[in-house]
Amino acid sequence: MKKRKTTNRRHDAGKGRPKAARNAPAIREWIYGRHAVLAALRNPQRQSGRLVATTEAAARLQADFATTAPEIMTRAQIDALLPESAVHQGLALDAPAPSNIALEDVLSNTAETAVIVVLDQVTDPHNVGAVLRSAAAFAAVAVVVQDRTAPPSSGALAKAASGALDVVPLVRVTNLARALEQIGKADFWRIGFDGDAETTLADAPLDGRVALVLGAEGSGLRRLSLQNCDHIARIQTQGTLTTLNVSNAAAIALYETVRRNDSGT
Amino acid sequence: MKKRKTTNRRHDAGKGRPKAARNAPAIREWIYGRHAVLAALRNPQRQSGRLVATTEAAARLQADFATTAPEIMTRAQIDALLPESAVHQGLALDAPAPSNIALEDVLSNTAETAVIVVLDQVTDPHNVGAVLRSAAAFAAVAVVVQDRTAPPSSGALAKAASGALDVVPLVRVTNLARALEQIGKADFWRIGFDGDAETTLADAPLDGRVALVLGAEGSGLRRLSLQNCDHIARIQTQGTLTTLNVSNAAAIALYETVRRNDSGT
Repeated sequence: MKKRKTTNRRHDAGKGRPKAARNAPAIREWIYGRHAVLAALRNPQRQSGRLVATTEAAARLQADFATTAPEIMTRAQIDALLPESAVHQGLALDAPAPSNIALEDVLSNTAETAVIVVLDQVTDPHNVGAVLRSAAAFAAVAVVVQDRTAPPSSGALAKAASGALDVVPLVRVTNLARALEQIGKADFWRIGFDGDAETTLADAPLDGRVALVLGAEGSGLRRLSLQNCDHIARIQTQGTLTTLNVSNAAAIALYETVRRNDSGT
Repeated sequence: MKKRKTTNRRHDAGKGRPKAARNAPAIREWIYGRHAVLAALRNPQRQSGRLVATTEAAARLQADFATTAPEIMTRAQIDALLPESAVHQGLALDAPAPSNIALEDVLSNTAETAVIVVLDQVTDPHNVGAVLRSAAAFAAVAVVVQDRTAPPSSGALAKAASGALDVVPLVRVTNLARALEQIGKADFWRIGFDGDAETTLADAPLDGRVALVLGAEGSGLRRLSLQNCDHIARIQTQGTLTTLNVSNAAAIALYETVRRNDSGT
């Protein structure tokens, strides 16, 4: 598994450079928006760099973080630092992504009842961020993605996650099929979602340790991912348009899993 | 109620102009992306103008619409027609939004078991579009929004709706509180969603005609909207971050309503 620990990355980037340069983040990884920035500032695992804010946002920040003094900028100056049309709410923080947590560490620290979300080839940062946010709301232990195809853990993903990136580990793995094998060996019942499945989510076994495995819209789960699932289910829809956005499908699956575990059915 | 019928708008825009100009759409309202464009072309209620496509997209289009010949453009030429960073998949159609359907017409044509979604001050086009898409998947009869605060029914909204704009009516009303009164008089049980509600969705009455009323993230439902609901509920979450994206909350509420009606509980 390719670990993306901040320390490793910094080490790689800093080869042969003087010490001061080695301590600076190698790439600017801006996160923006009030919820995302506040969660990052609250996360003791985060190492953060420049914090910029409009006068208004700085005043609001003061209420939560009296000791944190941002660089004051105009809205337009912050716009210029960030990707086009980033909705930053007057607040941005240059912070490397949280250290990658190894899947083994997540699996070895899991309770008897737990849910994990696995995303296969979901490339849209808004979708991955929204799934993380729902995963945080339903206390999932992790969201697992394939490093190569997943978007970076900053920018649009961090904004859509609305702080969840600092609450639920986004575990980036090199090989998703192998990760699914590991998850299965850790006694998770792996439920793959496929619109053509014969059985519905309502009939799926959702007690104990459950992994919800969702694919990209359109293409769905890849063959190897499907083969590494214990059960294939679909979310029962009714209309003429029957496909759901992947983050909405994940939210429903998380809700149903938690609801069933709560009610003991 | 302010009706946004295409015919009306065209009439207003075309005052005093020669006939040819009056027949042209007053404003360019591009929709883009394969699902959104195909659904619009399939919708007999839609009057559409220019259809542009890359060579590849035109070839795929030919399979579904043999009689429709798009203007062939390069990807960059299509980019230039559309808003920045629009993901168009090589296909765009200049089409006025579907005619607005009056709320009265929706309510008078409703079955004994039906679900309607009402959005209070949800301004983000991706969210409104994603809610429409879930509404289509769960066969909701309409999504109701306040015309003044809702995004236009094209562009990012149409893309996120993925064709649902041509399946589920997006009813734009002038006054949302009055619309909620009308919905109540039509025997819909109006369930307002609020994170601080004492009861959960699991305990909410969801049989018969149900209106799911959701507010903008952060601010939530306005006082007048809450007052016009019969029941206030929250979606039971578990984590440290307990707020859901509004489209994810709507998807869960729709799923739960349809699930309960199906199982008769």
